[in-house]
Amino acid sequence: MLNEQLGVAANFAVHQTVANRRAAGADILDLSFGESLLPVHPSLVERLAQGSVDTDYGPIAGDGAARAAAAGYFARRGLPTDPDQIVFAPGSKPLLLAVVAAVDGDVMLPSPTWVSYAPQARLLGRAAFPVPTPSHCGGVPDPDALRLAVRAARARRGRPRLVVLTLPDNPSGTLAPPAVVRRVCEVALAEGLTVVSDEIYRDLAHDGAPPLLSPAEVIPERTVVVTGLSKSHGIGGWRIGLARFPRGRHGAALRAGVVAAASEIWSTLARPMQAVAELALSEPPEIRAHLAAAARLHGTVAAAVHEVITAAGARCLPPQGGFYLYPDLEGIRDVLADKGVTTAADLQDHLLDRHGIAVLGGHLFGDKPRALRVRIATSLLYGDTPKQRWQTLHAADPLSLPHVRKAVDRIGAAFRALSSPARCSAGGRLVETAERGA
Amino acid sequence: MLNEQLGVAANFAVHQTVANRRAAGADILDLSFGESLLPVHPSLVERLAQGSVDTDYGPIAGDGAARAAAAGYFARRGLPTDPDQIVFAPGSKPLLLAVVAAVDGDVMLPSPTWVSYAPQARLLGRAAFPVPTPSHCGGVPDPDALRLAVRAARARRGRPRLVVLTLPDNPSGTLAPPAVVRRVCEVALAEGLTVVSDEIYRDLAHDGAPPLLSPAEVIPERTVVVTGLSKSHGIGGWRIGLARFPRGRHGAALRAGVVAAASEIWSTLARPMQAVAELALSEPPEIRAHLAAAARLHGTVAAAVHEVITAAGARCLPPQGGFYLYPDLEGIRDVLADKGVTTAADLQDHLLDRHGIAVLGGHLFGDKPRALRVRIATSLLYGDTPKQRWQTLHAADPLSLPHVRKAVDRIGAAFRALSSPARCSAGGRLVETAERGA
Repeated sequence: MLNEQLGVAANFAVHQTVANRRAAGADILDLSFGESLLPVHPSLVERLAQGSVDTDYGPIAGDGAARAAAAGYFARRGLPTDPDQIVFAPGSKPLLLAVVAAVDGDVMLPSPTWVSYAPQARLLGRAAFPVPTPSHCGGVPDPDALRLAVRAARARRGRPRLVVLTLPDNPSGTLAPPAVVRRVCEVALAEGLTVVSDEIYRDLAHDGAPPLLSPAEVIPERTVVVTGLSKSHGIGGWRIGLARFPRGRHGAALRAGVVAAASEIWSTLARPMQAVAELALSEPPEIRAHLAAAARLHGTVAAAVHEVITAAGARCLPPQGGFYLYPDLEGIRDVLADKGVTTAADLQDHLLDRHGIAVLGGHLFGDKPRALRVRIATSLLYGDTPKQRWQTLHAADPLSLPHVRKAVDRIGAAFRALSSPARCSAGGRLVETAERGA
Repeated sequence: MLNEQLGVAANFAVHQTVANRRAAGADILDLSFGESLLPVHPSLVERLAQGSVDTDYGPIAGDGAARAAAAGYFARRGLPTDPDQIVFAPGSKPLLLAVVAAVDGDVMLPSPTWVSYAPQARLLGRAAFPVPTPSHCGGVPDPDALRLAVRAARARRGRPRLVVLTLPDNPSGTLAPPAVVRRVCEVALAEGLTVVSDEIYRDLAHDGAPPLLSPAEVIPERTVVVTGLSKSHGIGGWRIGLARFPRGRHGAALRAGVVAAASEIWSTLARPMQAVAELALSEPPEIRAHLAAAARLHGTVAAAVHEVITAAGARCLPPQGGFYLYPDLEGIRDVLADKGVTTAADLQDHLLDRHGIAVLGGHLFGDKPRALRVRIATSLLYGDTPKQRWQTLHAADPLSLPHVRKAVDRIGAAFRALSSPARCSAGGRLVETAERGA
């Protein structure tokens, strides 16, 4: 009598496995969970306390001051915005769900893409159709493939109405080139799709990354931008998300539908968190500097991990934003096969069991199960205590800090071990030359 | 292309109407919205600030300390509980939704009942089947009617798997007698239904109210209890809800499904709010006293409103918990018909337009549209400022306070006007003898 299709989101499930193994004494390097534990700026802590005076529900979408700050935030990113285009929620997840609820139809998703888009659609009884997404597209579907997939979905009685894009992308940590964004928007418009642009990693662009072109700049009347403060401000546990809806009739109707869904699901973002959002989104200089330091650190460490894994033989695009990498080990398939690793799930298990390194297999992002790809999250490498993470954030050269260096080296050693031929141990068991980073 | 079935929850919609009319200068007495603005206890404010140190996601269900406090809370109410039976969420709404998501089937609902249960089921593509609920049942369906409705639903290819009970009830403010709870639980068990017992008003039992029998005491292995701190602690805007799942295999599987839904929808209750919940649910003496004062005030004012509306000719059961009344004006149908009022919606409009009193018509709770019933919420009568509400909470005789007295009198006058025969004004327009409480 239970809903058998419902499982815990893959990232949370592996995160729990890590916690269990650590509790049992294992030394696990957690590269599975996209959480930033960098210190929250003290002014946001202070604002949370001040925000406790608001104990009433307030408007479903969020109060005027918080929405005005959000409008300013988007305006500074080239998207002129009225506060009435904004809706807040306890995280970006409920908003992504509510947008699907507000639309009468199905969802087109890049493949691979973030773990929760498809389960959300299924929770609401909608279909999620995958669209092949070449790695050079930065997580945005190939435009021609999108058109074909929409038509194929219609031929199967699907009713595609939304396409979700992630800029910068999770799992790949890369950013879609503007030309691809433009073309995919053209297809969306021609096929009557509304674009959901998940820009939660936008403010964590790495140094030297190309500028982000938001679909909301290309087809403003058909794009909902969803974002949140979890990743950028290191406050995943405070649950603050927001969405910007298009101007015009379609946008207003869509927003009304999301507010209606909100009224039945979460009522409103907790008022003290709205006060936090108001301050963070108004971006005073000290918050801006704090955020820039976080983005720099993520970029530096992700680049270092990119260097050691590519040196060890992985193919991997250089990360451009956020804190993810998505290496492909197709080039060493034969070597891995000798170790019994022939799928992404095998690779995930092998890295955890043999090297104590937790990652997520590409299959969890909807990638082909036999593709030898895993997602690496580098955001939990900055230290085990708040003090250590504070020092890491403010270090001139974070890679020179022993705990960061050790983690990066351990990843490099594990990837070198992956690409080393298996040899027989004395007991006849296949072993790698460098197990557990030794 | 939008989901046409989706509308803003009726209580929020009317609350917004009130806000709009007030902004336009109207003097509205808001009896439409079930929000307590009574002052939050200062220790909870302090705890919120302390809780800001937790910025990580933490466990989806809530951290161990908060779940242990919740277990103690239930144990003190006759429900021995392990912390692993608890799940927290940003309000009770997401939990009610997630329980439906976790079950593979449809929902049986009392009629009338709270406005959001049915829309939540529909959001997930499930059916909600109403069960006639006589007023003496305290919001719990008549057991025989439940059995018949389950079978009728099955005959229509429905798959009833849940029944929602509200104790004490919203809209009626009454408490189901233990004998009815026992019999409805027997039917639920026999028909394979899991009971969702919404006990969010439990701690606001009025003086002299009979003890509450929770379905979790009757069929512990088949009852999920859902509650929250919004109503009892006056912190609707902080969004804190929790659920207690049954022990045993069924309970564990159901809870796992809810945690899975949580992982896709809200991730976790904001960590600082978990700290608040931990303190509130551990019920130190000062919090307990504060809560008792709130319950006493709600009981006193609801009883006073009951007195004036029944004196004016309304039939209405005495309220026993929470802050609602559900008067029935069938006895003056003819008089109301002369005023053009023949449905609950008419009555709601008439009270708002002629008397500046906002209530919710019974139709919004799924009651028969022609039944002349409205729901009155008395929780917004305690003052317009935090200071005034603090004084009201601590007054020896709140009814002697001018702002409370005036509001109660205004309600009485409006109900007397309703039952007064219409007469022709000089201009020939039908008017009431006591418009706008004059």
